[in-house]
Amino acid sequence: MVVVMAADATDEQAGGVVELVRKAGGDAFVSRGVSRTIIGLTGDVDHFATLNLASQPGVSDVVRISVPYKLVSREHRRERSVIRVAGVPIGPDTLTVIAGPCAVETAEQTLESARMAKAAGASLLRGGAYKPRSSPYAFQGLGEAGLRILADVRAETGLPVVTEVVDPGDVDLVASYADMLQVGTRNMQNFPLLQAVGGAGKPVMLKRGMNATIEEWLMAAEYIAQRGNLDIVLCERGIRTFEKATRNTLDISAVPVAQRLSHLPVIVDPSHSGGRRDLVLPLSRAAIAVGADGIIVDVHPRPEAALCDGPQALIESDLRELASVAAHLSPLVGRTRVNPCLTATGARANLVGQLA
Amino acid sequence: MVVVMAADATDEQAGGVVELVRKAGGDAFVSRGVSRTIIGLTGDVDHFATLNLASQPGVSDVVRISVPYKLVSREHRRERSVIRVAGVPIGPDTLTVIAGPCAVETAEQTLESARMAKAAGASLLRGGAYKPRSSPYAFQGLGEAGLRILADVRAETGLPVVTEVVDPGDVDLVASYADMLQVGTRNMQNFPLLQAVGGAGKPVMLKRGMNATIEEWLMAAEYIAQRGNLDIVLCERGIRTFEKATRNTLDISAVPVAQRLSHLPVIVDPSHSGGRRDLVLPLSRAAIAVGADGIIVDVHPRPEAALCDGPQALIESDLRELASVAAHLSPLVGRTRVNPCLTATGARANLVGQLA
Amino acid sequence: MVVVMAADATDEQAGGVVELVRKAGGDAFVSRGVSRTIIGLTGDVDHFATLNLASQPGVSDVVRISVPYKLVSREHRRERSVIRVAGVPIGPDTLTVIAGPCAVETAEQTLESARMAKAAGASLLRGGAYKPRSSPYAFQGLGEAGLRILADVRAETGLPVVTEVVDPGDVDLVASYADMLQVGTRNMQNFPLLQAVGGAGKPVMLKRGMNATIEEWLMAAEYIAQRGNLDIVLCERGIRTFEKATRNTLDISAVPVAQRLSHLPVIVDPSHSGGRRDLVLPLSRAAIAVGADGIIVDVHPRPEAALCDGPQALIESDLRELASVAAHLSPLVGRTRVNPCLTATGARANLVGQLA
Amino acid sequence: MVVVMAADATDEQAGGVVELVRKAGGDAFVSRGVSRTIIGLTGDVDHFATLNLASQPGVSDVVRISVPYKLVSREHRRERSVIRVAGVPIGPDTLTVIAGPCAVETAEQTLESARMAKAAGASLLRGGAYKPRSSPYAFQGLGEAGLRILADVRAETGLPVVTEVVDPGDVDLVASYADMLQVGTRNMQNFPLLQAVGGAGKPVMLKRGMNATIEEWLMAAEYIAQRGNLDIVLCERGIRTFEKATRNTLDISAVPVAQRLSHLPVIVDPSHSGGRRDLVLPLSRAAIAVGADGIIVDVHPRPEAALCDGPQALIESDLRELASVAAHLSPLVGRTRVNPCLTATGARANLVGQLA
Repeated sequence: MVVVMAADATDEQAGGVVELVRKAGGDAFVSRGVSRTIIGLTGDVDHFATLNLASQPGVSDVVRISVPYKLVSREHRRERSVIRVAGVPIGPDTLTVIAGPCAVETAEQTLESARMAKAAGASLLRGGAYKPRSSPYAFQGLGEAGLRILADVRAETGLPVVTEVVDPGDVDLVASYADMLQVGTRNMQNFPLLQAVGGAGKPVMLKRGMNATIEEWLMAAEYIAQRGNLDIVLCERGIRTFEKATRNTLDISAVPVAQRLSHLPVIVDPSHSGGRRDLVLPLSRAAIAVGADGIIVDVHPRPEAALCDGPQALIESDLRELASVAAHLSPLVGRTRVNPCLTATGARANLVGQLA
Repeated sequence: MVVVMAADATDEQAGGVVELVRKAGGDAFVSRGVSRTIIGLTGDVDHFATLNLASQPGVSDVVRISVPYKLVSREHRRERSVIRVAGVPIGPDTLTVIAGPCAVETAEQTLESARMAKAAGASLLRGGAYKPRSSPYAFQGLGEAGLRILADVRAETGLPVVTEVVDPGDVDLVASYADMLQVGTRNMQNFPLLQAVGGAGKPVMLKRGMNATIEEWLMAAEYIAQRGNLDIVLCERGIRTFEKATRNTLDISAVPVAQRLSHLPVIVDPSHSGGRRDLVLPLSRAAIAVGADGIIVDVHPRPEAALCDGPQALIESDLRELASVAAHLSPLVGRTRVNPCLTATGARANLVGQLA
Repeated sequence: MVVVMAADATDEQAGGVVELVRKAGGDAFVSRGVSRTIIGLTGDVDHFATLNLASQPGVSDVVRISVPYKLVSREHRRERSVIRVAGVPIGPDTLTVIAGPCAVETAEQTLESARMAKAAGASLLRGGAYKPRSSPYAFQGLGEAGLRILADVRAETGLPVVTEVVDPGDVDLVASYADMLQVGTRNMQNFPLLQAVGGAGKPVMLKRGMNATIEEWLMAAEYIAQRGNLDIVLCERGIRTFEKATRNTLDISAVPVAQRLSHLPVIVDPSHSGGRRDLVLPLSRAAIAVGADGIIVDVHPRPEAALCDGPQALIESDLRELASVAAHLSPLVGRTRVNPCLTATGARANLVGQLA
Repeated sequence: MVVVMAADATDEQAGGVVELVRKAGGDAFVSRGVSRTIIGLTGDVDHFATLNLASQPGVSDVVRISVPYKLVSREHRRERSVIRVAGVPIGPDTLTVIAGPCAVETAEQTLESARMAKAAGASLLRGGAYKPRSSPYAFQGLGEAGLRILADVRAETGLPVVTEVVDPGDVDLVASYADMLQVGTRNMQNFPLLQAVGGAGKPVMLKRGMNATIEEWLMAAEYIAQRGNLDIVLCERGIRTFEKATRNTLDISAVPVAQRLSHLPVIVDPSHSGGRRDLVLPLSRAAIAVGADGIIVDVHPRPEAALCDGPQALIESDLRELASVAAHLSPLVGRTRVNPCLTATGARANLVGQLA
């Protein structure tokens, strides 16, 4: 059970709810988000129903939810959500392609990748300035210098920027450059980071932990949502199995399963799933056909020289084929491809019309 | 390295090859298949190359293969194979749908399921008379009575029959009824069974072990191939992971990976992968889009009364939707749907024309 | 619920029980073992309790069991069982060491291994004549010639023989040589094989499937027990995980867990678990300390020349250290080491005295 | 290859090494620790060997290491390390018991747990003030109030404190109270946190990620070591598998494997591995017997009322049995049990004598 406080509710009013619940033998956890305060209740829910919480001062809504994740569940919101990243929609009626280099290495490489991405129909640019790497001796990213490159490339190409943040202490800095914050697979259960991005005022892409169940993934999303941020996109990127032919095993079933349990959009990363360039196109086809709300792929002008994950990066000819695949498959699954030119030039009325 | 003996080669000639290899410090394993004898060599392959094996008496071919599976590899046969099951093709140019009840329960249920399957475009009938079940207290199948039902339903509907065999001692009996023998996931490394079906003179569907790597799967196929039977279809049916929302995790990447490594057709079982009726259609779309050569699905006229795996069985309306999905997606991946009416009535020239 | 029929019950009497249960809306599965017939019931157990099954003609006992495995559960038999292999006990009061070569290669290698094993305190000889191998090009065992070698070595050393059977059709042959039949990890769910060894009249060692849960393992044991054979020893041999430093991951917790759920003895195979000679001793110490009823290890006089699993075989000096470990740890966990000399020379009264 | 700079080396000198390496076609990553600067080199190591790096200004040592983790490897330091936590040793000659409540709930519960722990021979107190929980609605710990309770209980009992930190921003605060910082399983690849604890000047206990390989675990330790902190204790706490009878699967082999690869001490957490009170003692016996350098267990005066992980907490009678187990098994594996009374009262000369 979740109590949603009104926008102008006071701390005392939230405290009153907590006291009432504790007197009734339960427990209550207050989460203060940017725009609203939410109180999660645990204990004997049937008994709480007799407390008439909905009419307590400052309470806006009381939601009874059976699953352990509350705000991100479809019990809380029936309709599937559309998340907008600087105006670019990700949701049930569209197919959004996000592309870019795994890591920002230089201004030239990033710009070249972004142009390749845009030409192939991508409407968002991905690129890592902070790279969590298993080995401390591997390239760790350019840091803020990388963020500046991404901002410059956005100015040049019009593509909004999705980039990873790994340290709660960096969230404000990264959010000042990025249009969407990415939480990576290794950080899916980094709870202080989830809470920090929950309060950063920017949409968040939450990658599934490489060993997480879908339920754990949704509970991680709930950490973000609790801080008042429901602009979350889930990204399936492969789970660890004993199969060695692929870097990870794309759990394609996770897309429809997560979409049934949660109202949040679900996209697929075929590049990190397979870890092989030759699998990106077949896995993209599978992702679109299964009903993903978008895909995110690595591109690189010269994969053989990439500082990170070169073996899985697409080159120009692959991207053309991917664009063609997306164009042909989207209508079959009832989706409009998001057109980067339109969104970038502000002619969004058109697109919104298509989606209505 | 594999030495393929001529059809009329004698045992002495095979023995001569073995002796030559052993003298050179290696080892040689002779497999006598129905139609040919194959000798697999292990040891210093570079040295064997100097033995001039190809010109020994009785030797038809010498194939140098780097992977541990030989006959089923694309190093051995460049072109992807087409397997025919009573005339129905499974291969790179077609999309073959196999459908039927998980278990044969009664003549009526089997016939009804077969008619549902055929109406939805299936060209082969699946159905289990021998059911390997985790619990000895679960329904174990009707045995030979089930095989007779399958044969009657084939006579009635024209659909060739795919059915599982679990005991090497039953292979001849099952082969006398079936058009294709199925080796189930729990038996993927049941080597005496693999060898028995290898010698049975019928095509074999080899399901991937629920915990097997792709390499182990191909080595299991090699056991069948060694006995002279290359009419093998690989079936991905989900692997075991820690995810609990689905019965197994469909390893969708396994389709393109296995197709690159082996010339054998690869089909997908979306019913056993997900274990949920609501996932069969999305996973079928993913399977067709990724490039599978066919799909195999459970159907049941009354899933709620099924003796086995009811929760995943499709009903009539699902099957109509599946037929529509297959019709729309097949051309996008360059495939012709196999038409059951044509194949069942013998008008195959037509179909072959389409495939050429 | 399980109905155990009397030894002299007729088929008609068993049929009467089945009919009664089916009329009551349930289902009943009859298993005819060597010495008794067992009927497993599924359905509304509370309702069956009103049928007064215990007083039906031919019924010896009615056992209500909540877990899916019945006969092997501790609900069925409170006390932990002692299994005797040609007089050698495996059970809660002893520590039984089984040792020998992974594969029987030659008479000399087998005899030498057996002598090493005996000198180190092993009381049973292991050795494979039928080897299930992932690759059809790997050494597959000597077959019956290997069984003859084992019988000769038993005659020479007095050590009873444990050996694997892989084909239901070979069970009688193997049982005619062996003192204990082994079902390997790949065959844990080979149900016809389980049923065949259940009827062979010899004790069975059932290795855990490399990907099986403990519940599945116990249900596999139930297949054997259903045929009237409760002389089963469970062997934990490592499960498959993503860890690459070891061949498998020894699930040491499985020992106490399986012992709590089942009355059957549980032993550990540290050789196949780790796949590394340097881990056999530490894992043996862990197995004894956790409470295993025995251990089974690979030995080889010349591991570098072994045809199978050389890297994990112990040599003479390792075995001496293992004997010392077993001697020191056994008393700490309340166990007597089984003395091979005593059991081999028939002086068992002594040992039985120790165990009483 | 790793270049260790002298304590008084300047930034320019480190920069000179980097420049030299880059000119030679390689790459160099500078890590500035509290007490020393380390430069990790990647590229053609044979070529670097010709650069005569050891004689460059400011260079103290050049270490050639083949494994991806460098400073924590036994190639870097042959002898196994002893880590001291406020004087309490953890290392190859001792068996150190760490015990305490999973979460600090109240001053009374913590003090009572600590007294139970001490009476049972524990020499360090564990207890969480910051609890990373899968659900945002679960108890998240008392935060700094919990740290103050731990400090008070240390003053009362003399037991040094081990406690978890989850946010890089909290490291200094937690380090001001704790004697040892714990990095939990979900944070094993939280690289900013690893770097922060690497610079905090306190020993660190690094739990293995529940899905991490041993190699990844050691690379995570390397992140800490790179910052100049080699006072790291590795803690195996179970990995995720498909087995459902236990919360996680204790990878007992990881203890000897990690000890062979790294000079760092390795301890075992039997409480979180099994997640069941009835398994803690058997798994503790296994851990000690396999050669662990210590164990860490959950205790609680009233497990049924625990806010976190009650089902696995030991009570007083269990602890007495654990003490007895540790006393009997330690000498068998060549270890002295660390005596909390001695260490707590400062009479450490005695103990050090024993360990010398």
